[in-house]
Amino acid sequence: MSQKLKLLLIVTLFHSHVAFASDPDPVQDFCIAFKDSASGNPSCKNPSSVTVEDFTFSGIKFPGSYNQTGISIMLVNSNVFPGLNTLGMSFVRADFGVGGVNVPHYHPRATETLFVTEGRIYAGFVDSNNTVYAKVMEKGEVIVFPRGLAHFQMNVGNTPASFVGSFNSQNPGLQRIPAAIFGSGIKEALLEKAFGLDANEIAKLRKRFLIPH
Amino acid sequence: MSQKLKLLLIVTLFHSHVAFASDPDPVQDFCIAFKDSASGNPSCKNPSSVTVEDFTFSGIKFPGSYNQTGISIMLVNSNVFPGLNTLGMSFVRADFGVGGVNVPHYHPRATETLFVTEGRIYAGFVDSNNTVYAKVMEKGEVIVFPRGLAHFQMNVGNTPASFVGSFNSQNPGLQRIPAAIFGSGIKEALLEKAFGLDANEIAKLRKRFLIPH
Amino acid sequence: MSQKLKLLLIVTLFHSHVAFASDPDPVQDFCIAFKDSASGNPSCKNPSSVTVEDFTFSGIKFPGSYNQTGISIMLVNSNVFPGLNTLGMSFVRADFGVGGVNVPHYHPRATETLFVTEGRIYAGFVDSNNTVYAKVMEKGEVIVFPRGLAHFQMNVGNTPASFVGSFNSQNPGLQRIPAAIFGSGIKEALLEKAFGLDANEIAKLRKRFLIPH
Amino acid sequence: MSQKLKLLLIVTLFHSHVAFASDPDPVQDFCIAFKDSASGNPSCKNPSSVTVEDFTFSGIKFPGSYNQTGISIMLVNSNVFPGLNTLGMSFVRADFGVGGVNVPHYHPRATETLFVTEGRIYAGFVDSNNTVYAKVMEKGEVIVFPRGLAHFQMNVGNTPASFVGSFNSQNPGLQRIPAAIFGSGIKEALLEKAFGLDANEIAKLRKRFLIPH
Amino acid sequence: MSQKLKLLLIVTLFHSHVAFASDPDPVQDFCIAFKDSASGNPSCKNPSSVTVEDFTFSGIKFPGSYNQTGISIMLVNSNVFPGLNTLGMSFVRADFGVGGVNVPHYHPRATETLFVTEGRIYAGFVDSNNTVYAKVMEKGEVIVFPRGLAHFQMNVGNTPASFVGSFNSQNPGLQRIPAAIFGSGIKEALLEKAFGLDANEIAKLRKRFLIPH
Amino acid sequence: MSQKLKLLLIVTLFHSHVAFASDPDPVQDFCIAFKDSASGNPSCKNPSSVTVEDFTFSGIKFPGSYNQTGISIMLVNSNVFPGLNTLGMSFVRADFGVGGVNVPHYHPRATETLFVTEGRIYAGFVDSNNTVYAKVMEKGEVIVFPRGLAHFQMNVGNTPASFVGSFNSQNPGLQRIPAAIFGSGIKEALLEKAFGLDANEIAKLRKRFLIPH
Repeated sequence: MSQKLKLLLIVTLFHSHVAFASDPDPVQDFCIAFKDSASGNPSCKNPSSVTVEDFTFSGIKFPGSYNQTGISIMLVNSNVFPGLNTLGMSFVRADFGVGGVNVPHYHPRATETLFVTEGRIYAGFVDSNNTVYAKVMEKGEVIVFPRGLAHFQMNVGNTPASFVGSFNSQNPGLQRIPAAIFGSGIKEALLEKAFGLDANEIAKLRKRFLIPH
Repeated sequence: MSQKLKLLLIVTLFHSHVAFASDPDPVQDFCIAFKDSASGNPSCKNPSSVTVEDFTFSGIKFPGSYNQTGISIMLVNSNVFPGLNTLGMSFVRADFGVGGVNVPHYHPRATETLFVTEGRIYAGFVDSNNTVYAKVMEKGEVIVFPRGLAHFQMNVGNTPASFVGSFNSQNPGLQRIPAAIFGSGIKEALLEKAFGLDANEIAKLRKRFLIPH
Repeated sequence: MSQKLKLLLIVTLFHSHVAFASDPDPVQDFCIAFKDSASGNPSCKNPSSVTVEDFTFSGIKFPGSYNQTGISIMLVNSNVFPGLNTLGMSFVRADFGVGGVNVPHYHPRATETLFVTEGRIYAGFVDSNNTVYAKVMEKGEVIVFPRGLAHFQMNVGNTPASFVGSFNSQNPGLQRIPAAIFGSGIKEALLEKAFGLDANEIAKLRKRFLIPH
Repeated sequence: MSQKLKLLLIVTLFHSHVAFASDPDPVQDFCIAFKDSASGNPSCKNPSSVTVEDFTFSGIKFPGSYNQTGISIMLVNSNVFPGLNTLGMSFVRADFGVGGVNVPHYHPRATETLFVTEGRIYAGFVDSNNTVYAKVMEKGEVIVFPRGLAHFQMNVGNTPASFVGSFNSQNPGLQRIPAAIFGSGIKEALLEKAFGLDANEIAKLRKRFLIPH
Repeated sequence: MSQKLKLLLIVTLFHSHVAFASDPDPVQDFCIAFKDSASGNPSCKNPSSVTVEDFTFSGIKFPGSYNQTGISIMLVNSNVFPGLNTLGMSFVRADFGVGGVNVPHYHPRATETLFVTEGRIYAGFVDSNNTVYAKVMEKGEVIVFPRGLAHFQMNVGNTPASFVGSFNSQNPGLQRIPAAIFGSGIKEALLEKAFGLDANEIAKLRKRFLIPH
Repeated sequence: MSQKLKLLLIVTLFHSHVAFASDPDPVQDFCIAFKDSASGNPSCKNPSSVTVEDFTFSGIKFPGSYNQTGISIMLVNSNVFPGLNTLGMSFVRADFGVGGVNVPHYHPRATETLFVTEGRIYAGFVDSNNTVYAKVMEKGEVIVFPRGLAHFQMNVGNTPASFVGSFNSQNPGLQRIPAAIFGSGIKEALLEKAFGLDANEIAKLRKRFLIPH
């Protein structure tokens, strides 16, 4: 063991000063996330200045504009809505043009329940056994996507469609599979072998999804 | 220590065969709740016979009929929708006639996010300090009720109203405060002292809420 | 989606700097809650200055003075006893004059086990089905109140009574139902409909419990 | 990979039918542990036959007889008191003769809060840094032992002493260090090297603690 | 609300008999997963017949034969090694031929720490922001893949390579992205739009990964 | 109740500003532990400056020098490797000279899986019933030690031996039993009674393990 490591071990093995976030039972009624302006450290807003506005959110009353696959997605986690902090929940509003697609994706830290508020949506997920569970959902119906499993939606009706989804984490995370795989800079040779595609095919996919940082 | 207890201790102190439910991370992709017909014990449905219908729910497409406070409530937990089992979520649809009231209540095991789908709803909750946080919510707005805190809603608009709520537990539980306190058979003398009411007043409230079992 | 929200989403969707409390497994032996005098941020006391006094509490050796329902309650959570921080437990001492009542209340974030240390106490709780489970407890007996369910006690003996309660949360929270409902400022019309009381009756109850902030 | 393992993997990799116990948030109000007489499987007692007696425990009203170190210990977990099942708590009553010792031990799955009900008790624990935190506790005082850390008590007064302890697990477990180390059959050579004792000294200790199974 | 649902609600709203698995703190020392031969229900093996063999596993002493991407993977969860049940951990051994690739995949329910036991392995993961974190790891080095994030490995050395990985779940789950997306039967039109590929290209990928069930 | 305590209660009963660490589900992809140089408070490293080096660890490529029982132990928790922070895992490398012993110890907050990388190691643990589960493990075999139970290892082969262990906590803690009991300053009279040893024997053990602080 190097001397440096040994020193680190002696100093830090037993007592941790570092203390961070998690998604379990809160230890107070609420804690509105708040960045202390003096120290820059995260904190809870002073309860005496908390109002009902801290617990309500109006940002998803109306849909946004469609993206390149014909949908608008507004994912509201505790960073966007600080009142959710420590409460273990967050939500999303999605609106679909006709034929709009929410690409296969998953949330690493949450189950999702999806309630269709308008239209007809083909929705489903894939399990660890590569079995797909999918069907067309109508207004007022609910589907559940188990934690961490890849899922997708497509507007298969002739009119716009929309849903409200809920998550059991204040920050469920998101991996959109096409961009995560082809837009992140994973070594080409690995992708070729993994997907059985040649260099040109991989290059085409990477070109589509690779965003210059 | 009695001999009987001592024996129990010897037999059972260290190894528990009893094993039950909880709401945390699942240990498989899913587990459709299923009551084994032979043994009567709870189990997971055989994955080979699971279909997408096990993960979807159509029972809240339409509202039910109003109760005595002018609302219809459909609480869908893992007992009603077995596909939610082990996934840590459940949901509710509520519909309000004009002036309809969802009486003060709370869910012992979950936070709730409420998305207004129709109308204008006065909604709020009370914290441990007896501070109320309430306002009128409109279609498309969201309010969050922290885990276990008492909350309530009332349709204050001129048209029917409705919302969809989500919980971060597969079975959040429910205590409707008027019925839990005055309809459960708590000793009258205790209630009189607790609320500062006389015997006649308590008797009137008990008469209203006490349901013969 | 508004531009402002979109910006928020871009900035904050994926990485959270906000990190807060919870009641699960600790990640160090202990962390005595400590407010940094320089930054004002919460922290763990430096382990080298921690002593056994940080883990012991003498504040409930003697009962306090009785309140208006004839009891003294001392709830000791991690704010009162910083040594409990991150350890997932807290406790309460209650003392009852003859006929003293602990009004119906509940703890949103904990189960409670109650050990009678003196006298005869009528104690019980109500479940989600509005069934009451109550009986008279004697010195040396234990009753358990499941997490989040409303419970109550009354000294039904001829001598003072007392108990020690324990919670499986460092900060279980507390909602005293009479004050939470009638003393918090919930809209009168809602309360009238919820309890089937007229405006005068509600006004009387509100007058009793409403505390000017 | 052997063919047998491969087969096992194919059959069992993705779907688990096995489902067991844990200590987190309950998913119902309560679940009185119950062994089904027909199938022998653990289950919850039928709620319709649950009474207040299922939630109360009288087995620690009186102390038991002292053991060889001069104490009586009654550890009441969910196996002894089935009403604790899924509720995340358990408790212990300890009574000490003058000079009685509760040997160094720890609970692998819980923090403990100890409330002195009689006498003067030297109590303390050791942290991961081998620092001891100990002092003499008097009636009405409380000490907390962090989860999993070794702790001990001794009656240092001139009269009998006793305490009530609480745990944040329905089954905290127990390792009494002298018996776990010297009474369990660990290889002698290992113990000699670990404690720097010779074969005779280890044999003496093993003789004292080794119980024929 | 339909009559059938209403009935279900009345019967099942408040008391759940269904009780299942999770990955949190155990409530006994151990529980060797065991399928009762009489009832077919999962249970814990009788402690009196448990031996050290229940806690040890020899099935990954030797590598298996390489698959079509040049690797051998042995994922050992609690279904394969029943001694892991309730203990919150599992593990994997991977062996790579020269150029062997472990395709992009993720574990929905666990973080993974990977310890290189032989050779030189290019390893990395992608975060929610589509940033890739990857490098070549050597024997004796460790990399951590955060819970639920997509990761991958490739043997970039001139000799065979291998690693041992550990998970903080008894059954972390597994989604191999190429097969989950192209081999599960998701609607072609959705995949075309999601990846920007034409029908022929999608058909080629589906042909490669779609396995007849 | 003292006035001081009453005041504390009024100020602090309901809202907690103190917020700390735990080992459960993360609420962001990752959070590299980082001590803010300005405020001295713990924080997450700015994601824009995070690189793959933050997720990899090279400090256990080579063994350290043997200690007095003939082994080298390198325990790598989130204090030593900040990339583990919030991810719920940590690990250890152990190397044994011939006859080297890892003294009986336990980790208060984690299960451990041990993978033998070289040699022949006698390894085992003791349960709450003082039953030992131990055997000789060979290269490539795995043993699991349930959370919090005392365990030990000894190189019983004729060549050096080593293993890699993993924990399901970012900081599992460590109590080495000989030093925790005899090297921590527990009152001699208590130890004499607990172990059935006389004052001279205890003094000898204390001399061996007591380290001047």
